[in-house]
Amino acid sequence: MRTTAQNAELALLLEVAGTPKPGNVDRHRDHDDLRFEHFLAGAVGARRGLEMAAVGEPLGESFLAAIEGMSEQRGGNTQFGAVLLQLPLVAAAGDGDRSLTPEGATAVVEATTVADAANFYRAFEAVDVAVDDPPEGMEPLDVRRGSDAVTELESRALTLRDVMERSADRDGVAREWVDGFQRVFAAAESIEGGDGPVADRAARTFLGLLADEVDTFVATQHDRATAEAVTERAQAALDGEVDPETLADEFVAEDINPGTTADIVAAGLFVALERGLDV
Amino acid sequence: MRTTAQNAELALLLEVAGTPKPGNVDRHRDHDDLRFEHFLAGAVGARRGLEMAAVGEPLGESFLAAIEGMSEQRGGNTQFGAVLLQLPLVAAAGDGDRSLTPEGATAVVEATTVADAANFYRAFEAVDVAVDDPPEGMEPLDVRRGSDAVTELESRALTLRDVMERSADRDGVAREWVDGFQRVFAAAESIEGGDGPVADRAARTFLGLLADEVDTFVATQHDRATAEAVTERAQAALDGEVDPETLADEFVAEDINPGTTADIVAAGLFVALERGLDV
Repeated sequence: MRTTAQNAELALLLEVAGTPKPGNVDRHRDHDDLRFEHFLAGAVGARRGLEMAAVGEPLGESFLAAIEGMSEQRGGNTQFGAVLLQLPLVAAAGDGDRSLTPEGATAVVEATTVADAANFYRAFEAVDVAVDDPPEGMEPLDVRRGSDAVTELESRALTLRDVMERSADRDGVAREWVDGFQRVFAAAESIEGGDGPVADRAARTFLGLLADEVDTFVATQHDRATAEAVTERAQAALDGEVDPETLADEFVAEDINPGTTADIVAAGLFVALERGLDV
Repeated sequence: MRTTAQNAELALLLEVAGTPKPGNVDRHRDHDDLRFEHFLAGAVGARRGLEMAAVGEPLGESFLAAIEGMSEQRGGNTQFGAVLLQLPLVAAAGDGDRSLTPEGATAVVEATTVADAANFYRAFEAVDVAVDDPPEGMEPLDVRRGSDAVTELESRALTLRDVMERSADRDGVAREWVDGFQRVFAAAESIEGGDGPVADRAARTFLGLLADEVDTFVATQHDRATAEAVTERAQAALDGEVDPETLADEFVAEDINPGTTADIVAAGLFVALERGLDV
């Protein structure tokens, strides 16, 4: 039987393999400087950090190890958000099967510390992650400051959960963290209930999620209006008005990468695999 | 830095991702019951056995663990031969960088025991592997007998190297084992010397190897004449007379799977990654 960390790594691989996944690297599409093989190396590299979380090591240290390992390829950021979203679930699953619930994962989130937050900030030094300017008053805690922000974190005594809460209104991964992982568990159910190859089900789940809610990574990269248009275009693909393959080509051409939606699918795949989904 | 076992797993993933790789599952092609996602799960599952070999556990136990882990997906045999070919190299690399040479890997092969051979046979119980009937006098050692053949192995005091030697004339993986891994190291050089994405280089190396020598898995699956024709058709693709993509479609349609050549590429990728190839 695969271990919890193996399932998490496999979920990262299955997520990137699923196609068509409009706007993102997948089995059939590369971006110019971020290619499929970078994701393979990134997922393999993340494994040690995933193993640490599964055996109960502190979440921040586990995340830092996962991201440092993930970054050992030339593509840069492959699945930063996906790993961040998986980690509380991995830690919960590592506690025993019955903890892999919204409540179990939320308990992990609630238990995070200031040290976890500090290591989360340090992880931004390993890789370039596209983020917005911080809101008013949060400039000293801009994640792009990396470990330079740690003193400020400590003086404000912010845990990793506190940091996530402050980003929840504009970051879909942070929102899942503080909101009981609702979309992750819904994604897992969608994947479990689907037919055919698992990666294909994950790609269909991706499209459903994208049509359902604005992708915050697209909003960060472009703007809110673009992200809302993406949602409508995904709905049109779901409704059969547009071929998802065409949409995939269009999004790549327009540099639209719904990364947050992909993160949710990766975490949903992990939950489904842990609950016994066969590949 | 990736560990030796991580490089071995990544090599398995890069090998299956490379395209076009005429006749085999790759990033763009599935077989009916053996799909890309089965290879992803297989590579992740093989990891524990790869880790065992890297830290010096007996080769047979490591192989059995790798194959049992690899088999935890619905596709059946994904990379049995590739793992078999990687293992002496992984064990040599685990001994320290300077041992990852033909001589270092051969020393590992020479040190195999009867117990290693017994676990090699047991691995055939975890997965269906296409093999030929054994030669005259070797029927009691037919690998398809699995652990039923172990008593015979023990009474003949055959090590895993001895077993490989007896198959070297008709199995390209066994030949590498007893022949100093010549084609594996040549493949590593070809990949290291190539341009562009690593998976693309691996696919070009695959085509070169296929044009160079008969694939023994094709000879087993079909016959010698088919395997020789495959070699000529690969050469035509190399010479630009046939589009490799067309050849890939033709081979899939004709159920021609040059698996031994893929095994050599996977082992070559491992050597190149261990020697510092960047992805």
